[in-house]
Amino acid sequence: MSKDKVYIFDTTLRDGEQVPGCKLNTEEKLDLALKLEGLGVDIIEAGFPISSPGDFESVSQIAKHIKKATVCGLSRAVQKDIETAAQALKHAARPRIHTGIGTSDYHIKSKFNSTREEILQRAVQCVKWARNFTGDVEFYAEDAGRTDNDYLAAVIEAVIKAGATVVNIPDTTGYCLPYQYGEKIAYLVNNVPNIDKAVISCHCHNDLGLATANSITGVIAGARQIECTINGLGERAGNTSLEEVVMIIRQHKHLGFHTDIKTEQLNPISRLVSDTMRMPVQPNKAIVGSNAFSHSSGIHQDGFLKNALTYEIINPEEVGADSSKIVLTARSGRSALAYRFQKLGFRFDRNDIDELYINFLAVADKKKEVEDADLADMAQQYRKKTVTA
Amino acid sequence: MSKDKVYIFDTTLRDGEQVPGCKLNTEEKLDLALKLEGLGVDIIEAGFPISSPGDFESVSQIAKHIKKATVCGLSRAVQKDIETAAQALKHAARPRIHTGIGTSDYHIKSKFNSTREEILQRAVQCVKWARNFTGDVEFYAEDAGRTDNDYLAAVIEAVIKAGATVVNIPDTTGYCLPYQYGEKIAYLVNNVPNIDKAVISCHCHNDLGLATANSITGVIAGARQIECTINGLGERAGNTSLEEVVMIIRQHKHLGFHTDIKTEQLNPISRLVSDTMRMPVQPNKAIVGSNAFSHSSGIHQDGFLKNALTYEIINPEEVGADSSKIVLTARSGRSALAYRFQKLGFRFDRNDIDELYINFLAVADKKKEVEDADLADMAQQYRKKTVTA
Repeated sequence: MSKDKVYIFDTTLRDGEQVPGCKLNTEEKLDLALKLEGLGVDIIEAGFPISSPGDFESVSQIAKHIKKATVCGLSRAVQKDIETAAQALKHAARPRIHTGIGTSDYHIKSKFNSTREEILQRAVQCVKWARNFTGDVEFYAEDAGRTDNDYLAAVIEAVIKAGATVVNIPDTTGYCLPYQYGEKIAYLVNNVPNIDKAVISCHCHNDLGLATANSITGVIAGARQIECTINGLGERAGNTSLEEVVMIIRQHKHLGFHTDIKTEQLNPISRLVSDTMRMPVQPNKAIVGSNAFSHSSGIHQDGFLKNALTYEIINPEEVGADSSKIVLTARSGRSALAYRFQKLGFRFDRNDIDELYINFLAVADKKKEVEDADLADMAQQYRKKTVTA
Repeated sequence: MSKDKVYIFDTTLRDGEQVPGCKLNTEEKLDLALKLEGLGVDIIEAGFPISSPGDFESVSQIAKHIKKATVCGLSRAVQKDIETAAQALKHAARPRIHTGIGTSDYHIKSKFNSTREEILQRAVQCVKWARNFTGDVEFYAEDAGRTDNDYLAAVIEAVIKAGATVVNIPDTTGYCLPYQYGEKIAYLVNNVPNIDKAVISCHCHNDLGLATANSITGVIAGARQIECTINGLGERAGNTSLEEVVMIIRQHKHLGFHTDIKTEQLNPISRLVSDTMRMPVQPNKAIVGSNAFSHSSGIHQDGFLKNALTYEIINPEEVGADSSKIVLTARSGRSALAYRFQKLGFRFDRNDIDELYINFLAVADKKKEVEDADLADMAQQYRKKTVTA
C-alpha cells in the first residue's frame, strides 16, 4: 500500500440502493458496477446478500464480472449473514466481507439489549467467521461517531487481532463535527497498538451537511479509505459524495494524497446514476450539479472573462462537465453583454455597449434569462436607430 | 451583542437570486423577505441596487416593509454603487450597506490590474463613503479564501478603522478546507488589533461541498455571523445552507452558540423558496430533502423502531418536516414488516412473520416500494391459506 493513496470504497449499490425508490434489478446493478470499475473505484460494495434473493443474485453476478476492483458484500455479525455473503462472493477475483455491529451505548442498550463486553465478543467472533472465507475482512463499528473512544479503541484492537484488515469508523447518524471526527480517528491511530495492521475507513452520513468535511478530516488524521456514493445517495440525507472527496484530494495536492479515480468520468456517471436510480441531482450540487460551472452575476462574469481562475477552481473538463456558462440575467454586467454580442458576430464599442446595456436591463428585468434571439433583436434595432440618426 | 449569539445573514435574495433561472420580481422578493423575517434571520441581503432598475425597486420595497431585521444592499467599491444602495435603503428601519473589493492576488492583478497598496486605499475609501449614509457598514474582502493572511489582516484593520462594523471573509471560490478557513479566521482574531470593534462574518461557497463545515469552523474560531441561503442556493454550487448551520448550532449545544431561527419553519420555507425560484431540492439534501427522515434498510428500521435515537439525531418536527418514514423495500427486515402490518390492523406472531417475510421479499424484489395495498393482499391470502390448511 502506498502511504498516500486514499482508497475509494463505493457503496452506491448498497447504501445508495437501499434508499426509497432507488432499488435496482440485477441487470441495472451489474451495469453500474462495470461503470464504477471503469471509473477507477478500488472497492465496490455490491449489496447485502442476506437481505433478499434478488440482492443475493445481484452480488453474485457482480462478483463474477468484476475483475479489477474488490467486490464487497455486507453482513451483520450473524453467522448466516456472513455465510450468505461468502457464497454470493464465491466467484469474485477479490472478495471482501464487510461485517460488524453497533458499538455506541444507544445501539448496545436499545438495539441489542446487551453489554459492552458481550458486544466486543460478538465483534471478534464475526471477524473470525468471515476470515474463514476470505483474507480481506472489513469490520464496521456502527455508530462509532457516538461511541466512547476508549471502548471503540478496545473493540478495534480486538477485531484487528481477530483478522480484520480494514476497520470502518462510521458516523452512522451524521452527528460529528469535523474536528470531532478527526480527533476520533487520531485517537485510534494513537491508542490502538496494532492499528498499522489495518486500513482505517471513513463512512460518514450527511444529516448535518458535514459528510464530505468529516471524511477529509478523517483522512488527514490517518484514515486511508473513504466510503462514498455517486451524488451522495444513501440513507436519509445520504452518504459522502464520491465526486466531492475525490476533487478535494485532487485540488489540494499539498495534503499529499491521491486516488485512482478518472475524474473526467464524474459528470457522465453522475447522470447515469441519477437516471437509473431516478434520483434528481439539484442544480447547485457541487461538481455535478447543472449550475456548478455557471457564472451569472456581473461581478463574477467580468472577473471570469478576464481570467477564469478568478472565480473557478476546477476546469469543468476535468470532471467531464460542459464548459463554463455565462448566463445573461438582470444581474449581469457590461463585459458579459459585450462578450455575448461578440460571440453572435456583433462588434460594439464602449459607448454602444453603455446604451445597449440600458435596453438589455429593461428586457432582463422582465425575463429570467436573456437569450441569443433577444440579443440579436436588440443589436439590429440599435443599428437601425444609429444608422437613421 | 451577546457573546454566544451567531447572527444569521440571509442572502437568498441576492446571492441566491442571481442564479440562472432564479430571478424574482419585486412582489416575489418582498413576499420572501417577509417570510425570512418571520423565520428569525437577523440580516436580509435584499439585492444589488445598482445592478438593474428592477432590483433597485425590490430593495426599496423590502426596506420599506421590513421592520425587525436589518436590510442590506450590496455594492462594489464604487461611489455610484454605494449611493444607489443608500438610496434604495432610505426607508429601512435598520439599513446596512455591504461594500468591498477583491483582495487576492488573482483579483488584484487579473480583475483590477492594480496593486495591493492601491486596493487597500480603495477598500478604506468605500467604507468611508458608505459610512456617510449609515452606521452599519459591512466590508467584504472578496476571495479572502485565497488572500495572503498578512495582507488580509492589514486590509481588515484599515477598514475597521475607517468605520466597518462587520468584516466579511468570503471563500469566494469554495476552495478552503475547514482547517484552513478556521486558521484564517483565527489569524485575524489574533493579528488585527481592533478586531473587537467588528463582527467577523463567514461567506462560504460550496464548490467542493465544504461551505457548511467551513462556516461552522469559522464560528468556532471567532466569527459571529454566517452568510447563507435557504437550500444552499447561490452562484455555481451555491452558498452555505442556512438550515444546515442553524441545526448544527442547535444540535451541538456544547459549542455554546445559539441563533434566533425558528427551526420549525425550515421545511416550509425551503419548499416555498424551491417553488418560487423553481430550484428543486434533491431528496437526499440534509434537513430539507424529502428523504432526510426516511429509514429503509432493515438494520436501520429495526433500530429506529426500538428507539428513534439509534438512527436519528433530529426530531423531524423540530424542523417542520413530516414525521419519520418507514419505507418497505427489499432491504427492509421483519420488524418493519410486522410494524406496518400492525398499523394496517393485522396482528401476526413471530412464525407468521417469518413465513410472510418470504412472500414479502418476492414482491419487494420486483417493486421499488411495497405499498399498503400489497401488504393487505399478502395478509389476506396468508390468512385464507392458514385457515384452509
